Amino acid sequence: MNRSNLKKLIHDVYKQKATPEEAMEMLKYLPYEDLGFARVDHHRGLRQGFPEVIYCEGKAVHQIIAIIDKMVKTGSDILATRAGPEIFEGVKKIDRKAEYNEIARAIVIKKRRVSLKGLIIVATAGTSDIPVGEEAAVTAETMGSRVERLYDVGVAGIHRLLDKTKVLMKASVIVVVAGMDGALASVVGGLVDKPVIAVPTSIGYGASFGGVSALLAMLNSCASGVAVVNIDNGFGAGCLAHKINMLSVR
Amino acid sequence: MNRSNLKKLIHDVYKQKATPEEAMEMLKYLPYEDLGFARVDHHRGLRQGFPEVIYCEGKAVHQIIAIIDKMVKTGSDILATRAGPEIFEGVKKIDRKAEYNEIARAIVIKKRRVSLKGLIIVATAGTSDIPVGEEAAVTAETMGSRVERLYDVGVAGIHRLLDKTKVLMKASVIVVVAGMDGALASVVGGLVDKPVIAVPTSIGYGASFGGVSALLAMLNSCASGVAVVNIDNGFGAGCLAHKINMLSVR
Amino acid sequence: MNRSNLKKLIHDVYKQKATPEEAMEMLKYLPYEDLGFARVDHHRGLRQGFPEVIYCEGKAVHQIIAIIDKMVKTGSDILATRAGPEIFEGVKKIDRKAEYNEIARAIVIKKRRVSLKGLIIVATAGTSDIPVGEEAAVTAETMGSRVERLYDVGVAGIHRLLDKTKVLMKASVIVVVAGMDGALASVVGGLVDKPVIAVPTSIGYGASFGGVSALLAMLNSCASGVAVVNIDNGFGAGCLAHKINMLSVR
Amino acid sequence: MNRSNLKKLIHDVYKQKATPEEAMEMLKYLPYEDLGFARVDHHRGLRQGFPEVIYCEGKAVHQIIAIIDKMVKTGSDILATRAGPEIFEGVKKIDRKAEYNEIARAIVIKKRRVSLKGLIIVATAGTSDIPVGEEAAVTAETMGSRVERLYDVGVAGIHRLLDKTKVLMKASVIVVVAGMDGALASVVGGLVDKPVIAVPTSIGYGASFGGVSALLAMLNSCASGVAVVNIDNGFGAGCLAHKINMLSVR
Amino acid sequence: MNRSNLKKLIHDVYKQKATPEEAMEMLKYLPYEDLGFARVDHHRGLRQGFPEVIYCEGKAVHQIIAIIDKMVKTGSDILATRAGPEIFEGVKKIDRKAEYNEIARAIVIKKRRVSLKGLIIVATAGTSDIPVGEEAAVTAETMGSRVERLYDVGVAGIHRLLDKTKVLMKASVIVVVAGMDGALASVVGGLVDKPVIAVPTSIGYGASFGGVSALLAMLNSCASGVAVVNIDNGFGAGCLAHKINMLSVR
Amino acid sequence: MNRSNLKKLIHDVYKQKATPEEAMEMLKYLPYEDLGFARVDHHRGLRQGFPEVIYCEGKAVHQIIAIIDKMVKTGSDILATRAGPEIFEGVKKIDRKAEYNEIARAIVIKKRRVSLKGLIIVATAGTSDIPVGEEAAVTAETMGSRVERLYDVGVAGIHRLLDKTKVLMKASVIVVVAGMDGALASVVGGLVDKPVIAVPTSIGYGASFGGVSALLAMLNSCASGVAVVNIDNGFGAGCLAHKINMLSVR
Amino acid sequence: MNRSNLKKLIHDVYKQKATPEEAMEMLKYLPYEDLGFARVDHHRGLRQGFPEVIYCEGKAVHQIIAIIDKMVKTGSDILATRAGPEIFEGVKKIDRKAEYNEIARAIVIKKRRVSLKGLIIVATAGTSDIPVGEEAAVTAETMGSRVERLYDVGVAGIHRLLDKTKVLMKASVIVVVAGMDGALASVVGGLVDKPVIAVPTSIGYGASFGGVSALLAMLNSCASGVAVVNIDNGFGAGCLAHKINMLSVR
Amino acid sequence: MNRSNLKKLIHDVYKQKATPEEAMEMLKYLPYEDLGFARVDHHRGLRQGFPEVIYCEGKAVHQIIAIIDKMVKTGSDILATRAGPEIFEGVKKIDRKAEYNEIARAIVIKKRRVSLKGLIIVATAGTSDIPVGEEAAVTAETMGSRVERLYDVGVAGIHRLLDKTKVLMKASVIVVVAGMDGALASVVGGLVDKPVIAVPTSIGYGASFGGVSALLAMLNSCASGVAVVNIDNGFGAGCLAHKINMLSVR
Repeated sequence: MNRSNLKKLIHDVYKQKATPEEAMEMLKYLPYEDLGFARVDHHRGLRQGFPEVIYCEGKAVHQIIAIIDKMVKTGSDILATRAGPEIFEGVKKIDRKAEYNEIARAIVIKKRRVSLKGLIIVATAGTSDIPVGEEAAVTAETMGSRVERLYDVGVAGIHRLLDKTKVLMKASVIVVVAGMDGALASVVGGLVDKPVIAVPTSIGYGASFGGVSALLAMLNSCASGVAVVNIDNGFGAGCLAHKINMLSVR
Repeated sequence: MNRSNLKKLIHDVYKQKATPEEAMEMLKYLPYEDLGFARVDHHRGLRQGFPEVIYCEGKAVHQIIAIIDKMVKTGSDILATRAGPEIFEGVKKIDRKAEYNEIARAIVIKKRRVSLKGLIIVATAGTSDIPVGEEAAVTAETMGSRVERLYDVGVAGIHRLLDKTKVLMKASVIVVVAGMDGALASVVGGLVDKPVIAVPTSIGYGASFGGVSALLAMLNSCASGVAVVNIDNGFGAGCLAHKINMLSVR
Repeated sequence: MNRSNLKKLIHDVYKQKATPEEAMEMLKYLPYEDLGFARVDHHRGLRQGFPEVIYCEGKAVHQIIAIIDKMVKTGSDILATRAGPEIFEGVKKIDRKAEYNEIARAIVIKKRRVSLKGLIIVATAGTSDIPVGEEAAVTAETMGSRVERLYDVGVAGIHRLLDKTKVLMKASVIVVVAGMDGALASVVGGLVDKPVIAVPTSIGYGASFGGVSALLAMLNSCASGVAVVNIDNGFGAGCLAHKINMLSVR
Repeated sequence: MNRSNLKKLIHDVYKQKATPEEAMEMLKYLPYEDLGFARVDHHRGLRQGFPEVIYCEGKAVHQIIAIIDKMVKTGSDILATRAGPEIFEGVKKIDRKAEYNEIARAIVIKKRRVSLKGLIIVATAGTSDIPVGEEAAVTAETMGSRVERLYDVGVAGIHRLLDKTKVLMKASVIVVVAGMDGALASVVGGLVDKPVIAVPTSIGYGASFGGVSALLAMLNSCASGVAVVNIDNGFGAGCLAHKINMLSVR
Repeated sequence: MNRSNLKKLIHDVYKQKATPEEAMEMLKYLPYEDLGFARVDHHRGLRQGFPEVIYCEGKAVHQIIAIIDKMVKTGSDILATRAGPEIFEGVKKIDRKAEYNEIARAIVIKKRRVSLKGLIIVATAGTSDIPVGEEAAVTAETMGSRVERLYDVGVAGIHRLLDKTKVLMKASVIVVVAGMDGALASVVGGLVDKPVIAVPTSIGYGASFGGVSALLAMLNSCASGVAVVNIDNGFGAGCLAHKINMLSVR
Repeated sequence: MNRSNLKKLIHDVYKQKATPEEAMEMLKYLPYEDLGFARVDHHRGLRQGFPEVIYCEGKAVHQIIAIIDKMVKTGSDILATRAGPEIFEGVKKIDRKAEYNEIARAIVIKKRRVSLKGLIIVATAGTSDIPVGEEAAVTAETMGSRVERLYDVGVAGIHRLLDKTKVLMKASVIVVVAGMDGALASVVGGLVDKPVIAVPTSIGYGASFGGVSALLAMLNSCASGVAVVNIDNGFGAGCLAHKINMLSVR
Repeated sequence: MNRSNLKKLIHDVYKQKATPEEAMEMLKYLPYEDLGFARVDHHRGLRQGFPEVIYCEGKAVHQIIAIIDKMVKTGSDILATRAGPEIFEGVKKIDRKAEYNEIARAIVIKKRRVSLKGLIIVATAGTSDIPVGEEAAVTAETMGSRVERLYDVGVAGIHRLLDKTKVLMKASVIVVVAGMDGALASVVGGLVDKPVIAVPTSIGYGASFGGVSALLAMLNSCASGVAVVNIDNGFGAGCLAHKINMLSVR
Repeated sequence: MNRSNLKKLIHDVYKQKATPEEAMEMLKYLPYEDLGFARVDHHRGLRQGFPEVIYCEGKAVHQIIAIIDKMVKTGSDILATRAGPEIFEGVKKIDRKAEYNEIARAIVIKKRRVSLKGLIIVATAGTSDIPVGEEAAVTAETMGSRVERLYDVGVAGIHRLLDKTKVLMKASVIVVVAGMDGALASVVGGLVDKPVIAVPTSIGYGASFGGVSALLAMLNSCASGVAVVNIDNGFGAGCLAHKINMLSVR
């Protein structure tokens, strides 16, 4: 459309419907508008089920609610991560459709339901890793991917995981969430031949160094085909997994 | 075949050609054989264009050549990474089809040419990052993906990258290879909405700490949808990119 | 039982009570069931005096009490570590036998008293290390090992330790708990020829880096036969010491 | 020379060509006095619009107010950084001219308005980096430099920055404030040929390690002409940028 | 000019000297050309005495000589850093004007002499820091700045530095090069009110960690107005100092 | 008390209530004598099949041979670790019984064969970890333990390990040797209920940081009952495993 | 030898060539007695003005008061470090002589005044370093050394320090307390030829890493004769300085 | 006071109570001259048996020999550290009195023998630590202190150290040299009440991180009165120990 706008403008000048001066005035927005294309593409992407994302940590409650209020009015879907219940209280007043995933600490507002596509598996090593896993899951779901959860399948009791080999095989991409030794990523990466997105968590104490032990273990996974996101970055993993999953359904 | 062995065994029992005791004896190997199935699947996957991979660093030349010799005889495709020219000299004598990518320091033996599918872009920030980029590219190509190279498009001269926005848009997945500040991953991640696999390299000196600066920058990318592999791990990135790319062509 | 299920199935096929197809269908669950055996073994192991262990940190009080309530009903022994007094208040209401080790912050429920076997010594360098030492001691005792405590025998006053050489000699394994310089592990490791499990603690400030100084010192112990667990991991040390101690009493 | 000057001076006094008072005046140029001069120069510099700076973190409210009270009476301009609103409450009572920059958490007292000179641009990658950016901006402004703010122009949406290329070109020095991947410093450094002062911020989580990821990325910037100050050190960057900017207006 | 090119193009269309299709064809290069302008500006900057810079580490001798050969033919000035004598041997054959700074390990080719402007001081703490200091000095000189060297004025004998206070005062910017404790940067920063660019060096052993001790000390300088570049990055410091110095002479 | 016991003893001797021999017997329990005894015990232990151990790294060939020569003459068994083939050449000349384990780089001289007792399993994740595994194995064997090797059973192909569950169950202690992600320790620790000694290796590159990734993963093992020795410390693991194994055979 | 000496002594007693008293006298030189003596020496040392020291951090108020109460009754002098005012409230009730150094957070009880000997200088770089400096000063004073304080003489205004060169020269040992860049230790170490004990403090933010920047700078001091204690360890520095100072007054 | 002294002096000259020559003489005591004096004092100090020290690492052989040649001609004593035998070959030709300590890698030239004073003990944990210990010893001896060596008294065989308690007690200061766990510093610090200078060494592998493990352990020594110098810095420890030892003999 920008392209067609441009085409129309040039034709208008050619047909002298517009003066060179008017054209110059409009063209000075060109580089910006060209890049704006990216933005427009982005907006389009968003309208296709991809919500606006607000990272709430470090923002005041009233700020977040103001942002969401403004977005809701433009008809945008909303995903707010790292949001405490007090934020949800405020958001609920703005839009009744707002839903709260207490474990993921995520608020979702979806304007209309769409059928979820493909299959992402989100696996966590322990129960303490579930909040990060849920953040990944709710992110991918809000963006339009189908997600199956395999929680508490850590390698200290490996039969729990082996039991699930078949379902792992069916996914187009697997998100592995683990703290401490991060070993689950390597074991899953060895069992399946699909992309594995590993999320180290800050679960642990002492020499886990807030997730560094899991991060390093995952970066050094002896299984090929494993990539890693930041510690506790469930959102990033869910977002990337969605992008990968979408490749399989197009 | 394992599956058919099992089938045959059960039929033999059904037909009383084998006693339950004999069956029990054989079935105790089942879990192994079952898992062996995974191995067979894996082998099958390999026959579908996925080569055997030998990581040469720290292995003696004669060991590597012996391994490849044995594999070549089974008709397997071969990918040998981190291989010096002296290794290639030996491999060439075993199989004339062996090709050497001097920059990637990779040896490839492909039994028959297959058409490469989909599109992966491998982008490097500087010229010093090219060996790692080539390792990623040759890995993905040997596995069956089409790869386009965008080398030396680092952010210190960002127009070089912006000029290539259109080609970036066409890929199903982008591998970004950068040392030092690792900034290219974030900029590419902001320009496209496709999965980005970031590979930090050990290029740099002083406070680059052998690639740690780029690794951390990439893990903290302000663009969502970026995941990271180990420092200089071109092979891992190429392998993962291939897995993702294959999702788009199936 | 799994095994007997399997046996029965094979006999059913042999007797043609089941078709090969039905058998194949059931056999595909075999690996899981086989591994399920491991789980049963595990349970059996637990019934032999090894309690269920609940790590309380990061769990809500009501969650912990619910877990323990459920376990208590199955007749299981309980060990809950890192448990504040408020958790004990709740647990006491569920089971009167619950005991609280305030220093170790551990709750223990033992269904019946068993005589403690072998000898583990738990030595701490300072008084501040005692909570971690107590966690190790109570863990090993709950699992069935006899434990003797040598607290505050740090090397800054080495005669305190040397006075205890004789008792050190009698143990089958020694747990050494120390923060700061972690030197006690090396000195004990040099005095005795028994396995030494070293536990670095986060006691200290500044360049102790939360236990890293003690951890590194212990990993680099000039005495051979010293192995190390995570910082403040009294539970892990107690558990491992118990496993080692049991070897000597079997 | 200093020595011969001294010799001549002493002889002049001996011959009563110079009075003791004149000698004392000149002796303050002795190397020692030279150092005293540095102090005097410094004072003079301060009177020329350069305020006294009080770093409030870790000081008690009453201490800070006492210090400012004393300074205000000497007619000095004041810049107090990392000052909470409760400090401003106290300062306001001392001097009505006191102004509070809530975002920068800075208190400024300027005795008389002076026209701001040259041009410094302070750019931040995200909205969370703005407090540090404001600290830099208010520092430079209080010292006498003109500052233009470009906030939220991070590389994940690079068109926002490219749109501003022209204004970047006009500055004599650019302060770039960014956390996480710190990539903005490299991109800005590549776009302009002016000095760039990079300020890493502690914005981020996990492997951002409190600003270390941005710090390392900035130290390893692939663009030449970038120097770095401490994490979150908006004051230092503003102060240095002012010194550089002043070179262009003299 | 781009602007005027654009204006001309639009007028040509208006006057129907160019068809809309021709205009579209040319306009699609616009964003690129706009950024290409940056490149042209950059080139112009280079022609104004700013040489092409080649970082030789990790490049083969024949590669470097080929690059320089090509550049020399375009009439460009050359600065090659981290260049061993064997590279200089080759370069001398290409261009007789090539000069070699053995200490800085830098090769310079200047087409015509220009008078050096302003004043940069490069100070080193010890004699071992001189190679890095020389790299900074030769970089700034090749770019057109006048440089004065103050070598071996470390704080362990502080009178050596204090004797030079007056000359420090005259510079527009000071580059301080120091390893180990990096203390010189703070002392110089406290003596003068000019911008200080600190360069940590890898001089030292043990807990200097290849320059990390000096790097951290400099980042934490108690003097305001000090910024830091990468360890051993004499080139970066020289380049930035030149940019700052040029502000004072324009 | 010791003091009063001593006083009483001396008085008894003085009064000839005790003979000097009785006094000597008692005095050997003095703490000092206790320590002396430790030495004697230690020596005795050594004579019971425990060899003298020489760590060769950083020692000159002639020094090592001189040490061994001297020991051999006292009839001691010898274990020399980290010994290159040039050292073995020299040792062979001193004692024909000397044997060289090329992979472990260990020289062993056993005066007489003794039957090996108990069972230690040494498992390695990859083939590159074998040298460290061999050092552990040869150490334990030389000290008198029976060792079974399970090499190349890393978790990227977990069926290789699961196939060996039965043999793992039979060992009294398991040494797990792994680099990179160190995940094997957790998986083995979860499969068996025996003590596990984990040895991180320096195998890997980039973010393996010379074995730190494996070290941290092992310290944070999600399986209880795992303790860790220094990176590449096969000797320490073998020595500790032997001490533990001996508990089960006494 | 020790053994034969002992044997001879016992025989001498038995033969009544030596009295029990003579034997006891000699036996105290036994290594054990030596150690016992060390304890006695230590006690004696303490009675000679060296107080009992209680590190209060992490201990409950009632515990500390109980310890002090017990000690006070034995007539011991007391030094309690890291003691909040609430502890002093309790201690004051036990012993009216108790004094509280609010800045050092130290409680001192001296039974009788003794004249302080020698001269220790405690210098701090900034005002924020004073609490640590005071801890060092009060420790040394309580032990019996004369202390002179030079606070806020950091190198950013080096004339403040140079003015004090003469007094620095008179001390037998100098304690230098500094955070951030730790540069004061090197400058003082270069000015005087007396032992310098450097205390890094955790003052600073960002890349000061809780005192690591100062610690590393001090360990790498370009001045010889500087040794370092733990971050914020004013007590350790005061204690060591006292030991050194006492050498000069004996 | 300085200022008033100065005022009085000038008035005396003015009144011709003092000649210009007398004034010049006194003026050299001005703070600046004081600093000059420091240099003179320093020189004087050197002439009193304190040699010139040359750190040879990173300097060319011919440079070192030139420096020494120049110094020798001024009659200065010489200490050259980290000097290989090839340097000694050259130095021997300049001055026959040159002696080479092969283990310490130190060259010493003493013009005249002086009796060594006081007592420093240099203790090492292992034999591999001896080179660093020798560097400390030879440094202190060359400066004029008497040194006694206690090598290989590490804590893994603590009786070796305890046997030497008496000699430890006699020293005025003890230098403890240890790598790996650095535990010897704490044990010695607990045995004696004299100043202890701890020198961590880079002896070790894996998690010793080139001496960091020992460094941290020593900084966190549980014994008070221990200070630490840089890793492998035998010279620094010897120099500081000498300064401390001299306090006891003056």
